[in-house]
Amino acid sequence: MHTIKGERLWDSLMAMAEIGPTERGGSSRLALSEEDRQGRELFSGWCEAAGMTLSVDRIGNLFARRPGRTDAAPVVMGSHLDTQPKGGRFDGIYGVLAGLEVVRTLNDNDIQTDKPLEIAVWTNEEGARFTPAMLGSAVFTGNLELDKALATCDRDGVSVAESLDHTGYAGEQPLGRTFDAYFEAHIEQGPILEDEGLPIGVVTGGQAICWLDIHVTGVAAHAGTTPMPKRKDALFGIGQMLGTLESLADDFAPKGLVTVGQLDIARSSRNTIAADVRFTLDLRHHEDAALADMEHEARERLARIAEERGLTIDIQRHWLSPATPFDPACVNAVREAVEGLGYPYRDIVSGAGHDAIHLARHCPTAMIFIPCADGLSHNEAESATPEDVRMGADVLLNAVLQRAGYQEK
Amino acid sequence: MHTIKGERLWDSLMAMAEIGPTERGGSSRLALSEEDRQGRELFSGWCEAAGMTLSVDRIGNLFARRPGRTDAAPVVMGSHLDTQPKGGRFDGIYGVLAGLEVVRTLNDNDIQTDKPLEIAVWTNEEGARFTPAMLGSAVFTGNLELDKALATCDRDGVSVAESLDHTGYAGEQPLGRTFDAYFEAHIEQGPILEDEGLPIGVVTGGQAICWLDIHVTGVAAHAGTTPMPKRKDALFGIGQMLGTLESLADDFAPKGLVTVGQLDIARSSRNTIAADVRFTLDLRHHEDAALADMEHEARERLARIAEERGLTIDIQRHWLSPATPFDPACVNAVREAVEGLGYPYRDIVSGAGHDAIHLARHCPTAMIFIPCADGLSHNEAESATPEDVRMGADVLLNAVLQRAGYQEK
Repeated sequence: MHTIKGERLWDSLMAMAEIGPTERGGSSRLALSEEDRQGRELFSGWCEAAGMTLSVDRIGNLFARRPGRTDAAPVVMGSHLDTQPKGGRFDGIYGVLAGLEVVRTLNDNDIQTDKPLEIAVWTNEEGARFTPAMLGSAVFTGNLELDKALATCDRDGVSVAESLDHTGYAGEQPLGRTFDAYFEAHIEQGPILEDEGLPIGVVTGGQAICWLDIHVTGVAAHAGTTPMPKRKDALFGIGQMLGTLESLADDFAPKGLVTVGQLDIARSSRNTIAADVRFTLDLRHHEDAALADMEHEARERLARIAEERGLTIDIQRHWLSPATPFDPACVNAVREAVEGLGYPYRDIVSGAGHDAIHLARHCPTAMIFIPCADGLSHNEAESATPEDVRMGADVLLNAVLQRAGYQEK
Repeated sequence: MHTIKGERLWDSLMAMAEIGPTERGGSSRLALSEEDRQGRELFSGWCEAAGMTLSVDRIGNLFARRPGRTDAAPVVMGSHLDTQPKGGRFDGIYGVLAGLEVVRTLNDNDIQTDKPLEIAVWTNEEGARFTPAMLGSAVFTGNLELDKALATCDRDGVSVAESLDHTGYAGEQPLGRTFDAYFEAHIEQGPILEDEGLPIGVVTGGQAICWLDIHVTGVAAHAGTTPMPKRKDALFGIGQMLGTLESLADDFAPKGLVTVGQLDIARSSRNTIAADVRFTLDLRHHEDAALADMEHEARERLARIAEERGLTIDIQRHWLSPATPFDPACVNAVREAVEGLGYPYRDIVSGAGHDAIHLARHCPTAMIFIPCADGLSHNEAESATPEDVRMGADVLLNAVLQRAGYQEK
C-alpha cells in the first residue's frame, strides 16, 4: 500500500481557500466567476509543476493529464472547484486536490501507471450561479445538450457561453471521451461517518429521488364566523398529511427519507381559513422499487385524507431520478484499498448529487467519502480533519493504482 | 307591531349597488374614494327627501337626523357604505338603508318618536383602503386617536385627511356625542342562520379573539444526506401541532374556533429540511375565561411538542380583544320586536368585527343579523333574500320604536 503526504494536500486545500475567502472562513467562488478563474489558474499551475498537460472542453471542463505507459483510456479522478456563494473549503475542492496529491505522490515515488491518469475539474457543479447543478459533467456525459447549457443565464442575464469566453475557458477538446474509470473523493455532506467514528465511506451508489408537487384546495372562509364543522380547512388537512408522511419514513426506515421543504398558502390572511395550499415532497430511497412503493403509499394516504375531509388534492411528479449503482469493480477497488490500508470504513449510499452520478452513466465509477463536521456543507463552517483528508486520499491513490496498473522504477 | 316596505328597501339596496358596480354583480366603493363619495351623496339625497338633516364629524362619519319630540340623546341606527375592492351589495349597506327605511316608514305612518333618531354612516369600516378596519367608529368612540387616524395612508400614500378634504367629508361635528342607544342590522357573514333556516339572529355580543404569533426553529440540513432520526424538522413538528390545535377546537366546541391562516418557511428549498417556520394562530370564544383557557392549553400543548422534538418555540401574543357583551336592554328590545312580529330567530354571537363592537363601549348597543347565502361576504357573490332583508328591517323598526318611545298622530 502506498500513502500520500497529508500535510502537502492540506496546505494545497488551505491555499485554494484563500481565493474568494469569506468572512467566516469559507470560500466564495461562483462558477466561471473571476474567483473561479483564479482557482482554476492556481490548480493549473500546480498541475504543470507536476508535469501534467492541460486541456479544456467546450463546456469549460478542465483536464490535467499524466501520461501512462500505454495509450489506453485514462483513469480519471476529480470533482469541482466552484463553491456556493458562502461555501466551504472542502466540497468539491477535496476531490480535485486529492487527485493532484495522488499525482504528486506518484512523481515522488517514480511510479508510472499503465493507463494514463487525468484529473477533471467539472464546470458549475454547485448550480448556485447557473441551473442545473452538475452542468459540466451533465454536458460531458451527454445528459444535457451543449447548446442548452451554453445558453443558460445567471440572474444578471450573463450566459454560460459568455462566461466561458470571459474567463478563457471556452475550450475545444471533444466531449464524451472514453474514460477507463472515474473516482471521486468527497466529503460526505451528512452525519453518518462522523456519528459512527469512521474515516472512510465506500460509496456504493447514489439513491433514487422522487419530487412531488402537491396542491390541496379547501374553502376560504371567515375565521370568526364559520363554525368548525362547516370548514374545509386545507391547512388542518395538511397537518394530518404531514403526520402520515412522517410515519411513511418510519415504514421505510432506515433507507427511506421524507422531506417537505416548501409550503405556501395563496392569499393567506391571519383570519381567513387556508384554502389554497401547495407543498413539495422529496422522497428518497436506495432502491428504485422501494422508492416507487413510497411514492405509491404517499399518493394513497394523502388522497385518502383529502377525501375524508372534503378537500381537493392534486399530486404531480416534478422529477424522478433513478438510483445510480456504482460499478462493482470500481467499488471493489476502493474497498480493497481501504482494507489494505487497514482503515475503518463502512459502505454508504450518496444522499447528495455529485458529478460522479453523471459519470456513472458514462464509465465505471466509484466514490470515496470522508466525514465532515456535523454533516455540514454549503456552509462556511464546513470542516474536515487533516487526518480524514489524508486517509481519504490514501484510499484514492491505491484504488487508482489498482485500476490503472503500474510499475515502480 | 309595525312593518316596513320591503320592496322600497330592496330597490334602494339595488340602486346603491349601481355605484361602483363590479363585473360579477358586486360593488366596489373603497372608503373615501370617488365611488364612496357618490354612494354617500345618493344616501344623503334620500335622507333630505325624507326630511332629515345631515352632519359630518371630523373623521367623516356622516349622520342623518330626524328630530324627536324631546331633545334627548338620539337612538342611532347605522353601519357603513364602503366596500371591499370586490365586495357585495349588503355588507354594511343593509344596516344604513334599513335605518333609512325605518325613517321612511315612520314618515308614511306619521309617527313621531320621543327621542331623536339618527342614521350613522361610519367611515372606512372595511379596512380595505385604510388600516385599521372600523376606523370611523373607533375614532368616534375614542378607541383610536383622531390625529393617528387622519395620518393613516393608503398604499398610494394618500392620507385619510387628504381623502376627507378631497371628497368634501371633513366635517366639524364633535366626536363622541352621547347616544341613547345604537342598533345595527347586518348580514351574518357566516352560515348559521341559513343552515338553521332562521331569518333573524338576535346578536348578544361579539366574541373574544386572541391572535398568537408562533415561531418554530429546527435545524436546516440536506434532505438527501440526513438520516431521519438525526433531523430536527420544524415542519413535521408543526404538522403535529396542527393536529393538536384541531383537537383543541373539539375540546372547546361549539363556541371555540381555531384557525391557522398564515405559515411561512424562511429560506425554504425543496431539498432542505425546514428549520425556521412562523405561523399565526387565531383563537376565538364567546367567553373571555374560556378563551384564556384555550390560549393556555394551546401554549402548553405546542411547547410540549416542541420539547419532545428538540425544536425551539417562541409564542407571542399579537392581539387580544375581549368579548363584547351587548346591552341587555337593547338586546331585549330586539328580542321583543322579533317575538312580537312572530319571526323565527335564534340568539347568536357575532364572529366578525362590526362598528357596533366599538359603539358597545360608548352606549347601549345591539345588533340584528339576517342570513346571507352560503355565509359569503367580502365577495361579489354576497347575497341575501328580499324576504330576509324585509324581516330584519321590521325588527329594527320595532326595536327602535320601543327604545325611542313614540306617539302615532
